[in-house]
Amino acid sequence: MTRGRFTVAGGGPVGALLAILLGRHGYEVGLYEGRPDSRATSIYEGKSINIALSHRGWQALEQIGIGSDAKADAIPMFHRAIHGLHGELSALPYGKEGDAIWSVSRGGINEQLLDIADAEPRIELHFEQRLVDVDFKTAAAVFQVDGEREITVDADYLFGADGAHSKVRRLAHELPRFSYSQEYMPQGYIELNIPANSDGSHKLEENALHIWPRKDFMLIALPNPDGTFTCTLFLNFSGDPSFGALRERSAVEAFFDSNFADAMEYLEDPIDAFIEKTPSPLFLVQVFPWSFNRKVGLIGDAAHAIVPFYGQGMNCGFEDCAELNRLIESHDHDWDLIFPAYENARKPNGDAIAELSKRNFVEMSDLSGDRRFQLRKMIEAKFSTRFPELWTPLYSMVTFSPDVPYSEALRIGDEQNRVMEKVMALPNLEEDWDKQHVMDQLFSLASDAFGDQ
Amino acid sequence: MTRGRFTVAGGGPVGALLAILLGRHGYEVGLYEGRPDSRATSIYEGKSINIALSHRGWQALEQIGIGSDAKADAIPMFHRAIHGLHGELSALPYGKEGDAIWSVSRGGINEQLLDIADAEPRIELHFEQRLVDVDFKTAAAVFQVDGEREITVDADYLFGADGAHSKVRRLAHELPRFSYSQEYMPQGYIELNIPANSDGSHKLEENALHIWPRKDFMLIALPNPDGTFTCTLFLNFSGDPSFGALRERSAVEAFFDSNFADAMEYLEDPIDAFIEKTPSPLFLVQVFPWSFNRKVGLIGDAAHAIVPFYGQGMNCGFEDCAELNRLIESHDHDWDLIFPAYENARKPNGDAIAELSKRNFVEMSDLSGDRRFQLRKMIEAKFSTRFPELWTPLYSMVTFSPDVPYSEALRIGDEQNRVMEKVMALPNLEEDWDKQHVMDQLFSLASDAFGDQ
Repeated sequence: MTRGRFTVAGGGPVGALLAILLGRHGYEVGLYEGRPDSRATSIYEGKSINIALSHRGWQALEQIGIGSDAKADAIPMFHRAIHGLHGELSALPYGKEGDAIWSVSRGGINEQLLDIADAEPRIELHFEQRLVDVDFKTAAAVFQVDGEREITVDADYLFGADGAHSKVRRLAHELPRFSYSQEYMPQGYIELNIPANSDGSHKLEENALHIWPRKDFMLIALPNPDGTFTCTLFLNFSGDPSFGALRERSAVEAFFDSNFADAMEYLEDPIDAFIEKTPSPLFLVQVFPWSFNRKVGLIGDAAHAIVPFYGQGMNCGFEDCAELNRLIESHDHDWDLIFPAYENARKPNGDAIAELSKRNFVEMSDLSGDRRFQLRKMIEAKFSTRFPELWTPLYSMVTFSPDVPYSEALRIGDEQNRVMEKVMALPNLEEDWDKQHVMDQLFSLASDAFGDQ
Repeated sequence: MTRGRFTVAGGGPVGALLAILLGRHGYEVGLYEGRPDSRATSIYEGKSINIALSHRGWQALEQIGIGSDAKADAIPMFHRAIHGLHGELSALPYGKEGDAIWSVSRGGINEQLLDIADAEPRIELHFEQRLVDVDFKTAAAVFQVDGEREITVDADYLFGADGAHSKVRRLAHELPRFSYSQEYMPQGYIELNIPANSDGSHKLEENALHIWPRKDFMLIALPNPDGTFTCTLFLNFSGDPSFGALRERSAVEAFFDSNFADAMEYLEDPIDAFIEKTPSPLFLVQVFPWSFNRKVGLIGDAAHAIVPFYGQGMNCGFEDCAELNRLIESHDHDWDLIFPAYENARKPNGDAIAELSKRNFVEMSDLSGDRRFQLRKMIEAKFSTRFPELWTPLYSMVTFSPDVPYSEALRIGDEQNRVMEKVMALPNLEEDWDKQHVMDQLFSLASDAFGDQ
């Protein structure tokens, strides 16, 4: 017996995971992807696009039993390796001993999920079929095949899992009272590369996310299993310095030499790359509703494109899938209830992680090179270890506490900021930070703020 | 001598005022409006669309010398006349003795401004010419004439003053890194009418803005010079009660009878109107940038469509014009400087009045019927009278203090909220509100918050 028929537009990680969950719930699923099947054509070959996966993402993958398989190809990063202006290195742990975020290959995890979807009896995969139109009343969709022929695919429901530039979402603009926000950040980014050593080992510490925080801009590096690092330079489009202002080769060289001196011996042709590459923009998209006529829904980046500074993009999309999975069970397949429950549950969390991700640019690029920021982190970490029931640092709530919704983490984090402002105003903190009176003061403030929760 | 040539798209009040200012600064101006000339075809006849004008708007009109002319046709509203559920009336002043917001006819003020523009030697008015395209690099624009023929109009600069649904702004969506937000409110609205008495007098108190605050919905009425009132019913699209849920005539009758009993004897066929009319949506639009290539700018609702709950829409648009007027002088006609200075000065204020206007729905529909809200207003009014250097109520800052930018009013208002929360937590306030110890406490808190500013 079939529960009904779904079209899933978009065969990225979120679309593939959603298809698997729906298929296992008894739905017939047609998964449509505009690009070729990367498993057949190796479009990921030679590229090392990696992203961060953390507890929320792993939890969703464990639901379908591939947590450990996926983890085998991932590299744990236990701390931020912060590169000072003169090459001095410091380590800032991400959480408690053993807590890590994971550098995973986007292509690798996508292909793992597609393989599982392929093996499901109720899922059909279609590649190189580009979405052209959606009937939001009937969930029928039109796809372009072979670059010209158009086919209409009927279904009971449709999900747009088609990413930050979602076609389903853009088509929804024509619907009445559709709220939409698209916000560009002042920064753009280019990717750079650090090659492996000749023996395949990493040139920098492997189990860390490397950051060169330079206040208005930064360079980061994530490790890949092949010994390389994928680096990303985030820099303003205009102003000084900026992609716009750095035009002369000599100026670009001076910029790299003075800011990333210790990376220059590792980076592969950064000057050429800087001059040749067009920086990509960074944008956020927020919309409401996430569902239409209880027939069509949005999920993942299609519903909430965010900036990458918290490493939560795919985690949030996977969590959308996990929430839907729960609601299918609790509402016993009644999509008149599931769609509104889904968007009401997830929209505040999508908004919260969007806000947290925006703020984290400042945290990464400015504060992580700042002694007072590090002091604050040390005080919080110590206090959290002693009074875990009173205090989980914001980064840990977002990254390592999947039971705390993003929206709740944002709210608690704002309250923690107010408390820590008072603690950081105590005198002689540089010397006294781990003295008893500081802990006592924090205990008193934290008990007031969080004690009766 | 001419300073250069401007195209102004949109012949509403903001477009007409902008054209006059530019013309008087020595620019050749072509003002293009898609609709017919209301002065010739009387499209406003029989309609009584009125809007609120306050100090910011008057100040801008006085710049071009028509403040007193326009005021002659406007009706001052000195207080809110609040209609309770059982017809009980209370008055809540808008500001100090003599402070008023003014009910003006949108059509009337528009026609006054068009007349002035028509009389300017450097301004050409074109009606029934619909904007089709803009070249954002050259400021050339294409207009459709007679519903078919297309003409290209060259200019040095172009302003989109074409309102909440701005075509210039929609064309700008295609430009790189254009941030855009369009947010729909849960409420919609329909207009209703209260006719004049047979002698042309008003059936309700003339010099007041009437409000029937019913928490999730409200009815308001603004006086017109012909003795009528234009009423607006704001109500959710869905839920209970809502435009969506109230379908049966008997249910609509019960809704009006139980909520607006004292208005039923005055309203003209409200039940028929409710059943026949399609509610209009309420939305906000926020964008950035407001200018492109230092050639094309956005102004008024085209740059910042807001909801009507603060009565500031036209005031804000007029203030945009006043700011441009100042910048033309201070930057001596250098538009490479004027465009960025204009958007940097006005964008934070557009965002602030958008936020304030959203919040004011709650203030009008819920709190203004609430005894504690009225107590708070009374305490603030008394304190403000005694210590005007420490406290201007938020409403007065927005409405009667054009020297306080909207963004500053929002910031100070948030600080005032924090202070008043503490004051409103004092015991026995219902009896004690005007006692000395309440004033003392407020003085102490306000001095801490605002004393050294």
